Amino acid sequence: MSSIIQTQPLDVPSAIAQRRSIKTFKTDPIAPELLKQLVELTVAAPSSFNIQDWQIILVQDEAQKAALSAAAWNQQQIIQAPVTFVFAADASASEKNLNPIIEQALATGAWNESTANYFKTAIPQFQETLGDKQREYAIKDAIIAATHLVLAAESLGLSTCFMNGWLEDKVKEVIGAGDNPDLAIAVLVPVGYAAEPRLNPGRLPFSSNVSVDRIGNPYAG
Amino acid sequence: MSSIIQTQPLDVPSAIAQRRSIKTFKTDPIAPELLKQLVELTVAAPSSFNIQDWQIILVQDEAQKAALSAAAWNQQQIIQAPVTFVFAADASASEKNLNPIIEQALATGAWNESTANYFKTAIPQFQETLGDKQREYAIKDAIIAATHLVLAAESLGLSTCFMNGWLEDKVKEVIGAGDNPDLAIAVLVPVGYAAEPRLNPGRLPFSSNVSVDRIGNPYAG
Repeated sequence: MSSIIQTQPLDVPSAIAQRRSIKTFKTDPIAPELLKQLVELTVAAPSSFNIQDWQIILVQDEAQKAALSAAAWNQQQIIQAPVTFVFAADASASEKNLNPIIEQALATGAWNESTANYFKTAIPQFQETLGDKQREYAIKDAIIAATHLVLAAESLGLSTCFMNGWLEDKVKEVIGAGDNPDLAIAVLVPVGYAAEPRLNPGRLPFSSNVSVDRIGNPYAG
Repeated sequence: MSSIIQTQPLDVPSAIAQRRSIKTFKTDPIAPELLKQLVELTVAAPSSFNIQDWQIILVQDEAQKAALSAAAWNQQQIIQAPVTFVFAADASASEKNLNPIIEQALATGAWNESTANYFKTAIPQFQETLGDKQREYAIKDAIIAATHLVLAAESLGLSTCFMNGWLEDKVKEVIGAGDNPDLAIAVLVPVGYAAEPRLNPGRLPFSSNVSVDRIGNPYAG
């Protein structure tokens, strides 16, 4: 049942409402064409200046899954799920060769020559002004991509959970980035078919954390 | 045309594929019931231990929009769009009273007594171990929520853009949080009806930033 590809993906409001953070997965594999669709929808996420400052590692080899689980307090969902996406954020992406990004945007017509020339200096300058926040900004882009994955997976009949419980240095070792100081681990997302449902723990009323114009002026809804 | 509420929201893959970062908006208002739906879909996002460690401010008053635009290098999309969501991340959320969250999860049945009791100590302990990463973890949750907003808005006929260009201290002053050291600005998201389309700048090939098991072993797709 669970491995049948849905012909009609869920709409966004339904996917958001239905999604739960699943902690137990069947070991059923994800069909290669479905995995490819997920990866395409993940990297379709926007990023600052479209620099795509992420490294995404699909951990699916059994030995690698075991090592990744060990780096995440032995959480079993990494072992059970057929694949876990590791989202790493590359704080040095803007210092690399930006020509492939610029040439592609010129080719699609999204950026004109003037924009492209401006970005050649504006991108490194903006990153420079970030200073010690370069890591934070790269992590923001990686989390946007991870959220695209989570909602896309839900819409296509798969389940996921955002995982924050792991040791960064150990995860970096597992993915072969132990010696790269510019790479930060943003989040781990196992993807697969849910073995058990989970209930919605609910949400605080808007008055707790949604305001109009200024904090202290609660949104009435 | 643009203010007609769509009867069928877009599915997730279509919303992801169609979404562009829009920089010019019509001043058309968003119907109150549609705005409420967007807020509900935004706070439906998951967060670490469901602590919902965000403060979301809907900036829509004209004077507040002008002040927020001034804090964002005078970017005009904040003036044009009927509302801009400011996503602030509350790094101190776990030190606050967690009872409302725990009681709600007990009431829905999502957490049993044993889980609830464990979380009463586990949540503050996890946050404590984060040390100077508390800000980063709160920002991750806020960005997950912002991405829910962006894809929900797209599915309902609205447009958005993630904005990173602003001065944090000035944005905090505008929303009345200038004196709160625990609150970090994660991202600004104007929401409204697009005045102009934008083209897709494209994405790098998978070989640039998607790997299998280890970095350096590119995903072939």
